[in-house]
Amino acid sequence: MVNHVYKKVELVGSSPDSIEAAIENAIQMAGKSLKNLDWFEVIDTRGQIKDGKVAHYQVEIKVGFRIEN
Amino acid sequence: MVNHVYKKVELVGSSPDSIEAAIENAIQMAGKSLKNLDWFEVIDTRGQIKDGKVAHYQVEIKVGFRIEN
Amino acid sequence: MVNHVYKKVELVGSSPDSIEAAIENAIQMAGKSLKNLDWFEVIDTRGQIKDGKVAHYQVEIKVGFRIEN
Amino acid sequence: MVNHVYKKVELVGSSPDSIEAAIENAIQMAGKSLKNLDWFEVIDTRGQIKDGKVAHYQVEIKVGFRIEN
Amino acid sequence: MVNHVYKKVELVGSSPDSIEAAIENAIQMAGKSLKNLDWFEVIDTRGQIKDGKVAHYQVEIKVGFRIEN
Amino acid sequence: MVNHVYKKVELVGSSPDSIEAAIENAIQMAGKSLKNLDWFEVIDTRGQIKDGKVAHYQVEIKVGFRIEN
Amino acid sequence: MVNHVYKKVELVGSSPDSIEAAIENAIQMAGKSLKNLDWFEVIDTRGQIKDGKVAHYQVEIKVGFRIEN
Amino acid sequence: MVNHVYKKVELVGSSPDSIEAAIENAIQMAGKSLKNLDWFEVIDTRGQIKDGKVAHYQVEIKVGFRIEN
Amino acid sequence: MVNHVYKKVELVGSSPDSIEAAIENAIQMAGKSLKNLDWFEVIDTRGQIKDGKVAHYQVEIKVGFRIEN
Amino acid sequence: MVNHVYKKVELVGSSPDSIEAAIENAIQMAGKSLKNLDWFEVIDTRGQIKDGKVAHYQVEIKVGFRIEN
Amino acid sequence: MVNHVYKKVELVGSSPDSIEAAIENAIQMAGKSLKNLDWFEVIDTRGQIKDGKVAHYQVEIKVGFRIEN
Amino acid sequence: MVNHVYKKVELVGSSPDSIEAAIENAIQMAGKSLKNLDWFEVIDTRGQIKDGKVAHYQVEIKVGFRIEN
Repeated sequence: MVNHVYKKVELVGSSPDSIEAAIENAIQMAGKSLKNLDWFEVIDTRGQIKDGKVAHYQVEIKVGFRIEN
Repeated sequence: MVNHVYKKVELVGSSPDSIEAAIENAIQMAGKSLKNLDWFEVIDTRGQIKDGKVAHYQVEIKVGFRIEN
Repeated sequence: MVNHVYKKVELVGSSPDSIEAAIENAIQMAGKSLKNLDWFEVIDTRGQIKDGKVAHYQVEIKVGFRIEN
Repeated sequence: MVNHVYKKVELVGSSPDSIEAAIENAIQMAGKSLKNLDWFEVIDTRGQIKDGKVAHYQVEIKVGFRIEN
Repeated sequence: MVNHVYKKVELVGSSPDSIEAAIENAIQMAGKSLKNLDWFEVIDTRGQIKDGKVAHYQVEIKVGFRIEN
Repeated sequence: MVNHVYKKVELVGSSPDSIEAAIENAIQMAGKSLKNLDWFEVIDTRGQIKDGKVAHYQVEIKVGFRIEN
Repeated sequence: MVNHVYKKVELVGSSPDSIEAAIENAIQMAGKSLKNLDWFEVIDTRGQIKDGKVAHYQVEIKVGFRIEN
Repeated sequence: MVNHVYKKVELVGSSPDSIEAAIENAIQMAGKSLKNLDWFEVIDTRGQIKDGKVAHYQVEIKVGFRIEN
Repeated sequence: MVNHVYKKVELVGSSPDSIEAAIENAIQMAGKSLKNLDWFEVIDTRGQIKDGKVAHYQVEIKVGFRIEN
Repeated sequence: MVNHVYKKVELVGSSPDSIEAAIENAIQMAGKSLKNLDWFEVIDTRGQIKDGKVAHYQVEIKVGFRIEN
Repeated sequence: MVNHVYKKVELVGSSPDSIEAAIENAIQMAGKSLKNLDWFEVIDTRGQIKDGKVAHYQVEIKVGFRIEN
Repeated sequence: MVNHVYKKVELVGSSPDSIEAAIENAIQMAGKSLKNLDWFEVIDTRGQIKDGKVAHYQVEIKVGFRIEN
């Protein structure tokens, strides 16, 4: 059995719709350059306000992925 | 007037759909064995990734309930 | 160029529907008395439980707004 | 049913007598200008020392109150 | 010599009188169902306000007790 | 697919030998009354000193286990 | 002797020059509407980058001031 | 005007009576070997339980004092 | 409108002169390999002492930059 | 004298044997693609449980390395 | 019964072998100048890397000891 | 090779001029009674306000020094 090693990168995704959509956007972008994406952790949730409404949610996540030998 | 005492338990609910659904699932399960559920606090939000998408959200909550004398 | 100064106030919004709706409710209320709302940060997410279900979400946010000279 | 919104303000009360008295002093002062005070949270407890004894306790609290529409 | 194992449970005690009384109330309740109570740790101190005064203190504690083999 | 729910309990294990042995002792004790133990998280590491040496390590962990429906 | 009560407000000052200047700008603005400013605490230091250089420092502070009876 | 320098030491006071008495005991002991005690900060509040009651409160404080040139 | 995604990297800059210079050095180095640098956050400030004086400041920052599609 | 800049990456190493072995595995993997590894910091220690025993330790570390000009 | 007062000092021990050995080294050194050492708490675990391997572990601990009257 | 042990002390330096000067003042004072000063860590930055301006910066640091055998 191998002793896996994982790396975590820190991303901020945004979406005008929901916290979940902001998370999905960040993960989708991460998947373009990284393989073996395994889990995410929400670090911070914030957003911009325009005209007294949420313009977009900004969710900071850490994404963990297995490093291939 | 009685001086109420509350207990808090720590649960992790999961759902493929949303953060709210993961919270609801954990509370629904807690309600099967505990009475007087009163409030919850979100401690941590994370999730698993499969095929570059969120497979399910995992939300850690603390659930507070009143202890009956 | 001016050196802007911002103030942050701490609000708790609630909604029976979702975390996002609770955030929106707090921001909408803030907009009634404050101008130049610029961003928000989620500080805490919790809620009340009634009959074994989430009765309403309570989301504590900080709202930042530019102070006019 | 209305979706209440609450605001929190940060106060430091002091008293030579006890932690509880310092909390009460801060709440009493808050009540002079704010309505609908609902709850408080202790953030920090400290104090000044004079002649090798506690001169007064300084307790930092957040006070939450419902914003009326 | 045995290698003791301890468990910690999270309780919220309340009292209209003082922080210490709220702690004592939580411990007294814990002692009704748990044996070998050994120590407590204060996690959070808050309370409800009624008519501009502290209605009751709510102190969240963790109580540690030795698990018997 | 089911939406699993997990519970976490907080334990303190001790051992005169090593941090790892203290963790193992806590998990072994947990396994006597709980099923489906899944993961642990180290929360705090401390210990007692006797005669200028470590008498035993005390490691506080949270143990997560799946709740069966 | 009176038992003073203090209030704390949260501000973000900015300056292209230094962390100290950003602090001073926030305090100067606070002084326009508040009296009895007594102390500040740095909460967070960040800034904007333009053309690979710091465009301005943004320092979040809490400012404490005595509430007059 | 001199630029004062302060040192902080970390103490744990205990008392069977109250949190305030535990703080006073620690400060009283500090005053036996240190001069110019100026302020204290409560870091942690815990205690021992005996026979289902608080045996003594243990309050960890930091004590600040001015260093004489 | 696009939903931007940002990445954050963690750097430690150093300078014998000031905290600001240490920040600038880290950002300047980041700009050699990364585009679209947008903001920084100070995480930790420390430094080395030589001959009883600050030899250099070491400032840990996170640098955020927009990921191009 | 040059003003060194360091970068920190976040890794999770695993080992069935010990916390130290999990750390070493993460560092060994980091050394395959990064030069000038200088220090590490333990961020989190956790692990998987199988059959009531620790199956493997998972240690999250940050690894710092000097960036060459 | 006396109300004991304890002091805590902050030490960093190092060892090329293990986390436990680094803790023991710090405690052994503390015992040369301090009496009544009672407990320790691990605050931080880090280390130096040389040639892609852990050169030595550096463990920051707080050591508590009873102050004699 | 010896396994060095370091001690850390907590100081608050002040200066009317800058954060850096407050740090230097604390380190200079530490150097009068301690040898082998090695590094410092900034813990907290605050200050006093007089007449709507920063009267002096107060920077809390920890200073680490090697203990000689």
